[in-house]
Amino acid sequence: MQYKWMDNVRKVEPYVAGEQPKNADVIKLNTNENPYPPAPEVRSIINGMDTDILRKYPDPTISDLVNALADYHGVGHDQVFAGVGSDDVLSVAFLTFFAGDKPIIFPDITYAFYPVWADVYRIPYGTAPVGADFRINAADYMKENGGIVIANPNAPTSIWEAVDFFEEILKNNPSSMVIVDEAYVDFSNGSVLPLLEKYDNLLIVRTYSKSRSMAGMRIGYAIGRPEAIAAMNDIKQSINSYTLTQIAIASGVASVNDEKYFALSCAKVVATRDKYDAVLRSIGFSGPKSQTNFLFFRHERVGGNEIFKRLREQNIFVRHFSKPAIDDYLRITIGTDEEMERLTQALKDIVK
Amino acid sequence: MQYKWMDNVRKVEPYVAGEQPKNADVIKLNTNENPYPPAPEVRSIINGMDTDILRKYPDPTISDLVNALADYHGVGHDQVFAGVGSDDVLSVAFLTFFAGDKPIIFPDITYAFYPVWADVYRIPYGTAPVGADFRINAADYMKENGGIVIANPNAPTSIWEAVDFFEEILKNNPSSMVIVDEAYVDFSNGSVLPLLEKYDNLLIVRTYSKSRSMAGMRIGYAIGRPEAIAAMNDIKQSINSYTLTQIAIASGVASVNDEKYFALSCAKVVATRDKYDAVLRSIGFSGPKSQTNFLFFRHERVGGNEIFKRLREQNIFVRHFSKPAIDDYLRITIGTDEEMERLTQALKDIVK
Repeated sequence: MQYKWMDNVRKVEPYVAGEQPKNADVIKLNTNENPYPPAPEVRSIINGMDTDILRKYPDPTISDLVNALADYHGVGHDQVFAGVGSDDVLSVAFLTFFAGDKPIIFPDITYAFYPVWADVYRIPYGTAPVGADFRINAADYMKENGGIVIANPNAPTSIWEAVDFFEEILKNNPSSMVIVDEAYVDFSNGSVLPLLEKYDNLLIVRTYSKSRSMAGMRIGYAIGRPEAIAAMNDIKQSINSYTLTQIAIASGVASVNDEKYFALSCAKVVATRDKYDAVLRSIGFSGPKSQTNFLFFRHERVGGNEIFKRLREQNIFVRHFSKPAIDDYLRITIGTDEEMERLTQALKDIVK
Repeated sequence: MQYKWMDNVRKVEPYVAGEQPKNADVIKLNTNENPYPPAPEVRSIINGMDTDILRKYPDPTISDLVNALADYHGVGHDQVFAGVGSDDVLSVAFLTFFAGDKPIIFPDITYAFYPVWADVYRIPYGTAPVGADFRINAADYMKENGGIVIANPNAPTSIWEAVDFFEEILKNNPSSMVIVDEAYVDFSNGSVLPLLEKYDNLLIVRTYSKSRSMAGMRIGYAIGRPEAIAAMNDIKQSINSYTLTQIAIASGVASVNDEKYFALSCAKVVATRDKYDAVLRSIGFSGPKSQTNFLFFRHERVGGNEIFKRLREQNIFVRHFSKPAIDDYLRITIGTDEEMERLTQALKDIVK
């Protein structure tokens, strides 16, 4: 018999990421990327880099980026952890903080990677159902648990919960790390960061992939108490000593230093979102009021999968999840106004 | 009580990487980096890159690099897995293949990260003692086990074992994945790659950090049977969908495509190694005949820690491991001839 080693292989059901077509003609509204380029200084840094330094390992402490982010957020230099995108950061956080025997809890409709990390690391978990309006019910997170993770704004629902919602959860769960995944927070009404001073069990996770237009550079980070960040660094140093390259570190710092470009780019996405929120509602779509860089909409007559397929035939990619409760919905990333206009024309034709 | 969430934190003892001093004056012979820059085309690619593409996620399948490496090694495109340095690749391999209940085995003197990955992923393990000459005894790997990992050449010993040594182990362990960590193979008498056709339980791990002068770009890869690579990709897609950036992928391909530069750069390191092997022996050092880009030497009179400290005072960094069996030894990375000459002068002074 061949492949007898397969008995020792870990069984998993991997996360399925949105497609990254190599065809440049695609209108790509399927992975919540930013339609605008990174801050101009990012280009200068990469195109002017002395590549001879690549012969050496990068700084394992990632200190230039960690310090820049800490200063930006007004926290200590020992309160930021950086990784290869927020997926890497969340993966390390799951490993670090969810090592107890009790099940962790997260919403049943949320980022589909949470159960995948739980499975691969053999972390017991349970899900709490969101309401018919997709709102998360804070009371569901008051029972005994080994940890909590909630995306805010939540994906793919695009709904944001206010700071007191999280304060209630944090206050009632002193023995659990509560991870708030703020991937989309820069398009929303605000962060739970002010709670960090009061609650030691809060970990906030952020990404460069959405608001900072740097999905391709793979940078994410967490903000927490020094004790929490130290615990994450111990796990990180038990997996891979050197993660972010010098190129990622330097360009990550450049992005943080250009607040004007960042604010402008976020404002443009939000303006386009609010404009096309109204436009799509006018042709029979409905869904939550988005606080993200995407819309989570369904049409009054045509099914989600049907629209998904017909858009795809026209090289317009959006995201559709074949999951009963959200099967009617599409997750549509906010592109440029021009891209949204072409999407609108295509949708008008499909739903007419 | 504060920090009650600490009860749920995973307990680990992290790997301690060699120092990455920010001071440019240091003669850095402590992390087995290459003294020569990456292939010239790597610079052109990075300095000419259109950074607007960074707004998009990179290719999650890393196909350009995977295909280039597969073609280079003469294996199928479904036989290569790429990751963020060989540490990432090994970490994924441990998670993937070592999920059984039986202990995995590796030598007691070897890459110090192996027990760390086993601990963080709660993989049971045992070590097999190397001989007084630091040679690995193949018979130790014939008992029941959940997997095997051996570095060849081994680190920090610098010793290479021949292909039939591994064939014996592979043949006797059909139910175990046998990982051969070939980080230093390009400075040695050769790879176990020819065994892959005959044994389905072989996984070979390689890195860009040593022979390809790209430690700072974080690229490693594994070569195995399609079934093994598929299992690793499932685990990778359960941790982080997007790992290598477009910059890493493109510059990784450029390095593979410049075989002439690669061969020349390896030959230079080997020539310097063999020259200073003789020089250091002439002043009282001894140790194995290296098949790597470092020497593992001790001095007949002066202790390892003593030499380590005195070199450090002169801004010459080498690596010393405070572990009983190898406490007398230093691991000295091969630098340029000029760096090795300065090291030699300093050593002469220390041991005189």
